[in-house]
Amino acid sequence: MYITGIGRTPFGKLPNTLTELAIKAAHVALTDADLEAKEIDCVYVSNFCAGPTQKQLHLNSLIVNALEIVGVPSIRIEAACASGGAALHQALTRLDEKKFILVIGLEKLTNDPQQAISGISMASHRDLDQANGLIFPAAYALIADVYMRKYNLTVDDLTSIAFKNHQNANLNHNAHFYNKTVTRDMITNSAIVASPLRLYDCSPLSDGSCALVLTKQKRNKRDVAVVASALRSGPLSLTQMADLTTFSSAVKAAKDAYAMADLSPKDIDLAAVHDCFTIAEAIAMEDLGFCSKGYAKNMIRKNQTSLKGRLPINTDGGLKADGHPIGATGLAQIFELVTQMRGEAGTRQVNNAKYGLSHNIGGTGGTAAVHILKKEMK
Amino acid sequence: MYITGIGRTPFGKLPNTLTELAIKAAHVALTDADLEAKEIDCVYVSNFCAGPTQKQLHLNSLIVNALEIVGVPSIRIEAACASGGAALHQALTRLDEKKFILVIGLEKLTNDPQQAISGISMASHRDLDQANGLIFPAAYALIADVYMRKYNLTVDDLTSIAFKNHQNANLNHNAHFYNKTVTRDMITNSAIVASPLRLYDCSPLSDGSCALVLTKQKRNKRDVAVVASALRSGPLSLTQMADLTTFSSAVKAAKDAYAMADLSPKDIDLAAVHDCFTIAEAIAMEDLGFCSKGYAKNMIRKNQTSLKGRLPINTDGGLKADGHPIGATGLAQIFELVTQMRGEAGTRQVNNAKYGLSHNIGGTGGTAAVHILKKEMK
Repeated sequence: MYITGIGRTPFGKLPNTLTELAIKAAHVALTDADLEAKEIDCVYVSNFCAGPTQKQLHLNSLIVNALEIVGVPSIRIEAACASGGAALHQALTRLDEKKFILVIGLEKLTNDPQQAISGISMASHRDLDQANGLIFPAAYALIADVYMRKYNLTVDDLTSIAFKNHQNANLNHNAHFYNKTVTRDMITNSAIVASPLRLYDCSPLSDGSCALVLTKQKRNKRDVAVVASALRSGPLSLTQMADLTTFSSAVKAAKDAYAMADLSPKDIDLAAVHDCFTIAEAIAMEDLGFCSKGYAKNMIRKNQTSLKGRLPINTDGGLKADGHPIGATGLAQIFELVTQMRGEAGTRQVNNAKYGLSHNIGGTGGTAAVHILKKEMK
Repeated sequence: MYITGIGRTPFGKLPNTLTELAIKAAHVALTDADLEAKEIDCVYVSNFCAGPTQKQLHLNSLIVNALEIVGVPSIRIEAACASGGAALHQALTRLDEKKFILVIGLEKLTNDPQQAISGISMASHRDLDQANGLIFPAAYALIADVYMRKYNLTVDDLTSIAFKNHQNANLNHNAHFYNKTVTRDMITNSAIVASPLRLYDCSPLSDGSCALVLTKQKRNKRDVAVVASALRSGPLSLTQMADLTTFSSAVKAAKDAYAMADLSPKDIDLAAVHDCFTIAEAIAMEDLGFCSKGYAKNMIRKNQTSLKGRLPINTDGGLKADGHPIGATGLAQIFELVTQMRGEAGTRQVNNAKYGLSHNIGGTGGTAAVHILKKEMK
């Protein structure tokens, strides 16, 4: 199974409609794959909350109409912020029947931020979390608080994560925070959103779209192989979690993915992890086995996850600074891994990445999708 | 591929939460399959608009938590009113990897009818339809008007469809309109919703849930085989339709399904079609090839689609009278076909049905799913 085409829009506050975003990303991906839309056999659409925020459901139909390929089977997948990973997972299982599958993720959040915030809260448990005011910044603040006390992670470590991701985003012209200098002081002095998390610990509301073209057979040497695709569920509510410092869904999905690919965490050269809040990147590093539990801080302090480190993480800036147009996010992670593995990442290029891993989380771990990509040498 | 367990709640105005509805339907289906929840490998969730109406997305996680099978891969599918058919279609493609898949559809619409109506409109094109007030009763009224002029279908024919479906629902203790006598006079004298459609031409807002357990290998003689599963897309907006008297998605999906099963429309003994409005049942009969274009009226006038007719349609009462809890609807069609093919339909039992067909439509044909079931004789 291969990714043979990738395309995306910039992420940020964009003037475009959902339809326009979809067309842009799809056409870049199709051009990249040297295919015409009519050659696509099947379309998977990833979107989280266009119903509540844009008054538009039935996006599977909207998008085949926008691409002028009406008739083609098309399905929309929603799994909160893991919608992109879930859609890719689902699409990959259809490659035995279909020649070319387009997976397209999109979200529009900035035109009505209040509706967006209300929509995003629907990824949590309505009775157990939403009704108690446990919106995501609050939930992740509780997680951060428990984690930091237990494992001696400091505010300075969280700042390092944000700082690194903003630096990476400054090398990514598609990023929400491209061309924005963010200093450590700006991060540590930013407004408290939910203590200990400050504004710069939180990913933004972004608009954007990302598309991938999948194929069973390798077509050319720029194609990148998918060697593992795993999806797991976890507790929906924070109140259902036995341990706030780890996401069981991600641990299970990672274990599945390593087994499928016959790899261990040591084999991974590059990762895109779900840093919806800075604390989530630290937890992801441990859930994925990149270090032992509680030792993310060591990797952070040694700069091991920076572009020049031993395991670069979120080279595009991550959700934090590339942006988080929810339905597109899980696919944008793959876009970045493919870009890196093709050697097309320009000033943020990582050297010699053979295996790349993506980690896409819904809510506080209600869903997790993990994919492993491989650069084939010939 | 087999359906080895079925379960549903009654449809109607129910006091239950989404979680309660899911648990009820799932446990009936699991009991029917003689399985425990922990034996389920994968869960597909069909829901249309719990985001806008119940402020709850991420239902894939909600439901595995409710069933206490956290960890199991779970995905939510949305394709407007065809969500159930789309979820079943998707789940069937996973049976090579999974032993038992639970497909569960659910919707809650009656607790806030205004929100429900607003949510339902999101199945149409926001700019081309919603913005112009083209809500579904209006859209189907235009369709009915064009169809009736072109093919000389009468108001009396539409009344016959509603009357038959209400009669069938009166034999179905789970139906929204069970135990409600509906006469032809009540139908023809009911309030005009959008001319020519009156109140009794329209399906109701219902709450409800339906669950199916799928398995690759036949386990016992009550299992019913799935011999075709097809999904196609069509125009999302009424303004994108070349012909208002047919749904191209349904025609294509039916053609795919007959080819997969190596059957023709003549082989079908029993059908569950998407009668969101009475006119839709007439169009479905033609789109599925049960009669030539424009001749649904003949089948209707000869009572060929009644319980004792040559091709009983909507033996459970259909969307019209069994009810239309959107995410559950496409699965409830399968529930009825399986019940009939097992010979467990009681007073509404149809004789000797070998092949049953379900037809599930999203919006005005933006999505269509067609499935064909087979009763194996041994």
